Amino acid sequence: MDQKRQVIIIGGGPAGITAAIYALRSRLDVLLIEKGVMGGQVMITDLVENYPGFIEPIKGTDLIRAMREQAERFGLLVETDEVISIEPGETIHISGKKRQYSTESLIISSGAASSRLGSKGEAEFIGRGVSYCATCDGPFFEGLDIAVVGGGDVAVEEADYLTKFARNVYLIHRRDELRATKILQERLFANPKVEVIWNSVVKNVNGSDCVEQVVLEDVLTNEKKMLEVAGLFVFVGTTPNTMFVGKRLGLDKSGFIKVDREMRTDVSGIFAAGDVTSGGVRQISAAVGEATVAAMNSEKYIMNRRSC
Amino acid sequence: MDQKRQVIIIGGGPAGITAAIYALRSRLDVLLIEKGVMGGQVMITDLVENYPGFIEPIKGTDLIRAMREQAERFGLLVETDEVISIEPGETIHISGKKRQYSTESLIISSGAASSRLGSKGEAEFIGRGVSYCATCDGPFFEGLDIAVVGGGDVAVEEADYLTKFARNVYLIHRRDELRATKILQERLFANPKVEVIWNSVVKNVNGSDCVEQVVLEDVLTNEKKMLEVAGLFVFVGTTPNTMFVGKRLGLDKSGFIKVDREMRTDVSGIFAAGDVTSGGVRQISAAVGEATVAAMNSEKYIMNRRSC
Repeated sequence: MDQKRQVIIIGGGPAGITAAIYALRSRLDVLLIEKGVMGGQVMITDLVENYPGFIEPIKGTDLIRAMREQAERFGLLVETDEVISIEPGETIHISGKKRQYSTESLIISSGAASSRLGSKGEAEFIGRGVSYCATCDGPFFEGLDIAVVGGGDVAVEEADYLTKFARNVYLIHRRDELRATKILQERLFANPKVEVIWNSVVKNVNGSDCVEQVVLEDVLTNEKKMLEVAGLFVFVGTTPNTMFVGKRLGLDKSGFIKVDREMRTDVSGIFAAGDVTSGGVRQISAAVGEATVAAMNSEKYIMNRRSC
Repeated sequence: MDQKRQVIIIGGGPAGITAAIYALRSRLDVLLIEKGVMGGQVMITDLVENYPGFIEPIKGTDLIRAMREQAERFGLLVETDEVISIEPGETIHISGKKRQYSTESLIISSGAASSRLGSKGEAEFIGRGVSYCATCDGPFFEGLDIAVVGGGDVAVEEADYLTKFARNVYLIHRRDELRATKILQERLFANPKVEVIWNSVVKNVNGSDCVEQVVLEDVLTNEKKMLEVAGLFVFVGTTPNTMFVGKRLGLDKSGFIKVDREMRTDVSGIFAAGDVTSGGVRQISAAVGEATVAAMNSEKYIMNRRSC
């Protein structure tokens, strides 16, 4: 039997939880489907100091727990399932690995995942020196040496940005040239605090409590080299969790869902919010804002159907 | 002498404070100009229960205090002044009542004000039964009788929405017909929980701790009538604080600032966020989200100027 709801939310990060808070407070019948652990990328965030409302930095896990308990006060229902596909229509059908669902309105907040290097020690030091977000974590590296990995626009722009905080930034790239836009490259090369280390990959991330050192390997000579750094910022791509969307919604060329300012996708009744949307900034505060808009417009959408 | 900054923020509500947190963490030289008390409309909000991250409802004043202290940790500077005009350009010039300012980038988060009825007792009971936001406060009136004032789209839509919570909703309108779109009117008239009271205005709002009664006056007969209600929702218009903008930026027909999804106005280097923007939803979470985007794009704008 399929579960019929007024609003289904896919993904239980800050965007999904916020959408639930708003939809539940509007007395809608809401189900949130999360495939794994609630909280999304925030769960691998050690300290958050830029989400407005908390004077002192708050642990990512604590922030999520608070949001979740808040939503539970309004009756949050969570189903653990992985969505496989969606079928738009007057009633929207959703196929999960475990069961089928149908809903009047759908809010997709399934997030995105930063690509990992796969280096030894990388996963272990996430939140303790390894980061995938310059805006979030840059200020924690004031006066320290850090390494940045990547060769595209994001890596080059963020390496430059991180010199606001770091003493020296090493940009590690596996090729002998960057993929980034020329103007970004020029700005980077003109920055005296940046040193580019070409033809190199990160083999190991070492440290005791926090990152202290990365081991690089020259891809041409196989020569190994130690680099003493307190941080490793990885910008080698971000993959939106939109596999289940297929060709049902308009996506940008990287697979993020296209939305307008009202968080509508190109299919009536389906909204998106948070890191999964195209053109977003990947911050908790922005995800929460988008989800508010998505939920309020979802509510309006449902209300308007009554007169049809 | 004018004060030269990298980023100037006009308005110290949640959007302005958030923009400051982001810009300050990016090590920009930031000044926030606020004409009165920090916090904007939130300061007249008793309890906030839909800003994600707080399990229990939080007082509007406490939330603002926390945001402000958080921004102060990063070096928030506030100037008390009222902006009179802005002059876009390579350097943006700002004239205040007290002094002149100039900046590379400007973020406008000057908010909007809900129009008041001017009824006796109205101001006194704000946050204790008198509200200007259905999404924010509707759920606090579960099972109670409430009055809504207005005749436009917002009033009619919100009166209908509030029947999700309230036992009965009285829509009070000073004329004998509504201004709202026909389809919204039809839906309202079909709602058995709504009673429209025509040709009437609210003369008094009475109660001890909270609203208990409103006194209506029939504008044709001058006859007075008591209405026992626990809440009074007023939707008679919202005015954006954009007097100082003049014709410098694109505004919508109600005077709100037009922005794109990156919170850019139609003038390079000038961004807007929060209730002052066109097409927004007037929620703290949304304001905070927009301000995050505005500040990050302002930072990018400043960075990009370096290569010019």
